[in-house]
Amino acid sequence: MQDVPGLVAQAREGRPRAVARLISLVEGASPQLREVMAALAPLAGGAYVIGLTGSPGVGKSTSTSALVSAYRRAGKRVAVLAVDPSSPFSGGALLGDRVRMSEHASDPGVYIRSMATRGHLGGLAWSAPQAIRVLDAAGCDVILVETVGVGQSEVEIASQADTCVVLLAPGMGDGIQAAKAGILEIGDVYVVNKADRDGADATARELNHMLGLGEARGAGDWRPPIVKTVAARGQGMDEVVEALEKHRAWMEEHDVLTTRRAARAAREVETIAVTALRERIADLHGDRRLETLAGRVVAGELDPYTAADELIAGLTEPEAG
Amino acid sequence: MQDVPGLVAQAREGRPRAVARLISLVEGASPQLREVMAALAPLAGGAYVIGLTGSPGVGKSTSTSALVSAYRRAGKRVAVLAVDPSSPFSGGALLGDRVRMSEHASDPGVYIRSMATRGHLGGLAWSAPQAIRVLDAAGCDVILVETVGVGQSEVEIASQADTCVVLLAPGMGDGIQAAKAGILEIGDVYVVNKADRDGADATARELNHMLGLGEARGAGDWRPPIVKTVAARGQGMDEVVEALEKHRAWMEEHDVLTTRRAARAAREVETIAVTALRERIADLHGDRRLETLAGRVVAGELDPYTAADELIAGLTEPEAG
Repeated sequence: MQDVPGLVAQAREGRPRAVARLISLVEGASPQLREVMAALAPLAGGAYVIGLTGSPGVGKSTSTSALVSAYRRAGKRVAVLAVDPSSPFSGGALLGDRVRMSEHASDPGVYIRSMATRGHLGGLAWSAPQAIRVLDAAGCDVILVETVGVGQSEVEIASQADTCVVLLAPGMGDGIQAAKAGILEIGDVYVVNKADRDGADATARELNHMLGLGEARGAGDWRPPIVKTVAARGQGMDEVVEALEKHRAWMEEHDVLTTRRAARAAREVETIAVTALRERIADLHGDRRLETLAGRVVAGELDPYTAADELIAGLTEPEAG
Repeated sequence: MQDVPGLVAQAREGRPRAVARLISLVEGASPQLREVMAALAPLAGGAYVIGLTGSPGVGKSTSTSALVSAYRRAGKRVAVLAVDPSSPFSGGALLGDRVRMSEHASDPGVYIRSMATRGHLGGLAWSAPQAIRVLDAAGCDVILVETVGVGQSEVEIASQADTCVVLLAPGMGDGIQAAKAGILEIGDVYVVNKADRDGADATARELNHMLGLGEARGAGDWRPPIVKTVAARGQGMDEVVEALEKHRAWMEEHDVLTTRRAARAAREVETIAVTALRERIADLHGDRRLETLAGRVVAGELDPYTAADELIAGLTEPEAG
């Protein structure tokens, strides 16, 4: 068993190994998971969570790295949670192989973690918010959650950040892809990266048009800015940080931040509850209750709804003997 | 309110409007859903459910239509459930726009239904088995479930049939795509369609290699056959039917059919139960229980696990007031 209070204290001092161990405990559904989460609860809430998403090839890692640099210059402690559906890591490996990220590898003020989208109980919707909670409680000022904007769950994670940044690049047919993935609905800040390439202005114009930014909005409404960057050379990153800070200030002014965080917490609690109920159903496989019910459905003795009723009743009954 | 016993009696006489109405009742989560399912329970179990899946462009609709013709020649009542993720239909439209299918539109022994993958409560995993149950209870001898082998849920539906047919075509890079979608693990019968094109033999060979069909198997093991067809000209369809019937006979001989159906019913019951529990959680939004818990999580008073415990306890408590 791990010394949870000790790990939490070390994590708050910025010791990366303690942070890594805590994330492993919450990711892996350890028996100490609840103890960890209870210890973290009063400590979380200070971090600004920024989601970054976009199609493969728009320069997400490069942009994330440039943002890390910008926030480091401002003296902030920064964490990166890279959610990678194709990651060969089972979760927890440092992204030492990412050239752009490796420049931060020796900086004690930066914590980097990758998270695979597969193999976790309850999936990403379950494990990502918990890892964010650890990083938050550990005292990170800014948490950058980088996801590939392709799968529904990846997009959802980015959209549940305090501020969601959607990245595009010129000439990638992003317009259609973005619309498909629904990422045009979730951006608080849009970034057209690789702005030194042909077509950057056209992409920004098309985006402006698709977002309906020309249309009249209410006085208090947030108007998502479109920022052009060349992340590989660090160009435009200060403007991105400025846009992020403006959005954060706007959220605080309009009481949106608390609302967003409450919605995120509600989703998290709901996911944990449904996962727990699924586990209880899976446990029933062991005592053959579901198997027996299924057999009766196949035999035509029971319809599946009545069987489901009996299954649910079984969930809340006291355990047999 | 619909006259459920009357609809069921008419459906069993083969009246397509009664079948359509019953499917609409189960698909749309009507208040009469449970009444319908209870009425159908003792009548289902007679149909042979065949799943057909494959990448777009391999000729699924053409193959399905040719299979319908083959089974009609044998005097069987046939239903087609076309699961189409891109379908503009909200579920229930006849596929009159499908040229290959329209030849069966006037045949009273054929019932065709399309089902969109979106917008249904609990999704396809929830609605497809119920539609199959209606068609089964209505007295169809053969139910062909045609799905695009791209999404996880589409593949799952095909894999839960009594027999799963995986279609490929030459020169489409199917090998990699198929492996990606995991459809090489689910086929009981493989069909290389468009076998008059270049590369058909190579595709069959590659498939044979990937399936490891050259390897030694146990005496009682099923060895998935690879059948070459030109569905547009009806070539090879009798061989496909023969392969299907062989698989069915093998399943009955080895008691596999009952096991598969029990597994399918178990999944169906589990999905209904989880959907019901999710609905109960959603209902709690109404009485603000989840909202209150989420607010306490944001405030750091509660960790999300304890909040989930309280939420689950709330599911089984008697209603207030």
